[in-house]
Amino acid sequence: MSEAPVPVAAAREEPQRSAKWQARREAIIDTSARVFARGGYHATGITELCAANGLGKGALYHYIGSKEELLAAIHDRVMDEVMVGADRVADAGGSPSEQLTMLGDELLDVIHRYPDHVWVFLHEFPALTDRRADQFRVRRREYERRVETVLQAGIDAEEFRDVDPRLTALAWLGMHNYTYLWLKTGGRLSARDVAKPFADIFIHGIANRG
Amino acid sequence: MSEAPVPVAAAREEPQRSAKWQARREAIIDTSARVFARGGYHATGITELCAANGLGKGALYHYIGSKEELLAAIHDRVMDEVMVGADRVADAGGSPSEQLTMLGDELLDVIHRYPDHVWVFLHEFPALTDRRADQFRVRRREYERRVETVLQAGIDAEEFRDVDPRLTALAWLGMHNYTYLWLKTGGRLSARDVAKPFADIFIHGIANRG
Repeated sequence: MSEAPVPVAAAREEPQRSAKWQARREAIIDTSARVFARGGYHATGITELCAANGLGKGALYHYIGSKEELLAAIHDRVMDEVMVGADRVADAGGSPSEQLTMLGDELLDVIHRYPDHVWVFLHEFPALTDRRADQFRVRRREYERRVETVLQAGIDAEEFRDVDPRLTALAWLGMHNYTYLWLKTGGRLSARDVAKPFADIFIHGIANRG
Repeated sequence: MSEAPVPVAAAREEPQRSAKWQARREAIIDTSARVFARGGYHATGITELCAANGLGKGALYHYIGSKEELLAAIHDRVMDEVMVGADRVADAGGSPSEQLTMLGDELLDVIHRYPDHVWVFLHEFPALTDRRADQFRVRRREYERRVETVLQAGIDAEEFRDVDPRLTALAWLGMHNYTYLWLKTGGRLSARDVAKPFADIFIHGIANRG
């Protein structure tokens, strides 16, 4: 494992591709996430992925360079959405409590929409190697920092108690991420049904009452 | 998958074995948990398990009837400890806030001591079939009910706000269970270092302030 994390941008050197190629690739990523979620990453072979995607081996490799690249792409698909959500929150402004509430809404919305992807990347990330493993850590850390930044802003403004921002971010992330085991697309509960009471507990939990 | 969950006791019909046999079996479960955590359940063969345990195939089967039984035993080893902890908490008595704090202490202590077992059972439980899958669900639900019961007691005593006990238990479980990804035996943080601030956030989060 290399020591210094590779900047995210460096791993994105892809040739220019058509919108149609991109759309087909995304469909392959989504289908394959479902296949991996059911059968496990290691136990799923290229033949099975070809069958699920209705493609020959050559065509599959045209869209996805390798099985590991596919795993990284499944992770990126989720992290792209999570970061778009975090940017939307930062742009919206508001108090730290409002920011944290919005971050929870956005995160649970992604988990609710991508149960297979989240299952795969939470379970199979140790299969990523070298540059892809570094990139995975960098992107996860980048998001965690967004949460920590909101917490620190709340502490500085004395809106939140003087909690440890890192440990508190890990508590918040656990509470939200762990929903992947029971929050299902088409289930009884919507993402919002869960996000609201969760924000309520968490913000009361760290509120500064003077 | 069968509809009615099988009572836990029904799956425990084991012949009487010596203490030595039991101790050897537990050592095999612990070693195999480490092997599965590294290589994945499906990807790990009986040959690999034999090598890791220094046993021939016949001897391994003498202690463990099948690979799936081994997976169930890894799960039981964790759940046995978790339930012993929950019983200790119930016996200790105290207010719902104190009960919830103690449940967190006990749970994080188990996660901290059994990182491989927890990793394996959180990731590989879909590999359990039929009776073992039912038993897994029954035992998990049994523990979740302990948490819900403490929450309900706190609501009834107006010590906690009128939260949804089920959703609040899932929030609490997520916050605690998810530590398996970063709370490591021999790491910088002890289980108690984490349990204390987590209890602090959660109990403030649901406290009834009239």
